[in-house]
Amino acid sequence: MARNSVFILALMSLCIGLAAADWNILSKKSKNRDASSLKNYCESWRINVELNNIKDFEVVPQECVDHIRHYMTSSQYTADSERAIEEVRLYLSSCCSLEGDGKDAWIFDVDDTLLSTIPYYKKHGFGGEKLNATIFEAWMKQSKAPALDHALKFFHEIKDKGVKIFLISSRSETLRSATVENLINAGYHGWSGLTLRGLEDDFMKVQQYKSEARRALTKEGYRIWGIIGDQWSSVEGLPSARRTFKLPNSMYYLS
Amino acid sequence: MARNSVFILALMSLCIGLAAADWNILSKKSKNRDASSLKNYCESWRINVELNNIKDFEVVPQECVDHIRHYMTSSQYTADSERAIEEVRLYLSSCCSLEGDGKDAWIFDVDDTLLSTIPYYKKHGFGGEKLNATIFEAWMKQSKAPALDHALKFFHEIKDKGVKIFLISSRSETLRSATVENLINAGYHGWSGLTLRGLEDDFMKVQQYKSEARRALTKEGYRIWGIIGDQWSSVEGLPSARRTFKLPNSMYYLS
Repeated sequence: MARNSVFILALMSLCIGLAAADWNILSKKSKNRDASSLKNYCESWRINVELNNIKDFEVVPQECVDHIRHYMTSSQYTADSERAIEEVRLYLSSCCSLEGDGKDAWIFDVDDTLLSTIPYYKKHGFGGEKLNATIFEAWMKQSKAPALDHALKFFHEIKDKGVKIFLISSRSETLRSATVENLINAGYHGWSGLTLRGLEDDFMKVQQYKSEARRALTKEGYRIWGIIGDQWSSVEGLPSARRTFKLPNSMYYLS
Repeated sequence: MARNSVFILALMSLCIGLAAADWNILSKKSKNRDASSLKNYCESWRINVELNNIKDFEVVPQECVDHIRHYMTSSQYTADSERAIEEVRLYLSSCCSLEGDGKDAWIFDVDDTLLSTIPYYKKHGFGGEKLNATIFEAWMKQSKAPALDHALKFFHEIKDKGVKIFLISSRSETLRSATVENLINAGYHGWSGLTLRGLEDDFMKVQQYKSEARRALTKEGYRIWGIIGDQWSSVEGLPSARRTFKLPNSMYYLS
């Protein structure tokens, strides 16, 4: 009897052990499935932002902040941006009969095109927090944003070809000196114009404001060969450029 | 002496063993790095196609065919397309005061928007082979392309709202009956127009041809609330729609 009890007890332990192991496997599988499904969801969110299907988002969805943080600090983000600049080079190598009359022009965005705001977003939730304009402007006033290396290199290449460079940014006019200082600190110099948003531009959406700035350039006789920006609002609208290039950025949306 | 020899031999074996293990680890690391770097490279290629920075490619780069095959047959591709359609629904829920006068219109691409060409590309190198128009047309004539499920569902939703649906495809006019048969086989019915490329459209680029087709619709008084397509050439150009939606597709490019 005692031997039987021991046997049954052993059998029960074995069963419980197996069940627990099964449960662990199932639970791990389910966690993996959840993690994989969240990754799918957040990657779809990101790609649809880049495709301009998702517009006007105020914040990155909370559950996707980690995914966006991971991407924006990854070698993939760097590679994606570098590849975009490579395509600009390829375009320039064959596109344009630059006339060298001082009217060949190229337009750049500032934030997340020439200067990176990632150090700011690292401390402010990677787009998961609603932007606090005061804190963000205070950060911009420090003029510490680093250059995007590939953009910096290209900026000087195109300048050396005699193309006039115009920076059109949605930063406020009140940030002019901080912006100039930051650009110089980061290695940029020799641009021909820096357009910032004055009070009179505040009633306009970014896309309209940037289109107006381009219109002013074309009125002055500039041929805009290209635009590089990280926002669709920097490259959409008329007048446009012969070609436009969109850098990846899924931390915020300016319309 | 003999014991020393054994000892030295053992030591040597140990050293060789360790070196081999190190070599294996290094070689594995290097392979992982190569694989990871190729993945970065191909993902950058893909994202820059979707951003419309890479245009007019004839074939997917050979080294990236596996990456594109993997993406285009993945749950991520499905999720990305579904999310795009979700965004269309979100837009439609608040965008448009549909007037119900028979002049509310929506435009769809056909291939890789309503019908999937993935079964064809599965057998023809996933964009890595230059398109053989004869073989591709023979495949289209079989009318076997399956529906993209999420597009099919949305197609009927919007039709049920009384919106007129126009299909504008870069397929040739000679494929009309095969295309109609395929669409019906796949579950589509009730569209108001199917525009295909006639001989007279052959001198035009796809974007121009599709713009002309939209112009014809607006001349007839249609209000085009939206376009869904997998190619930038389906959504760019004037007249446009109030909003456009780009589905992912990195297998081919039509300009």
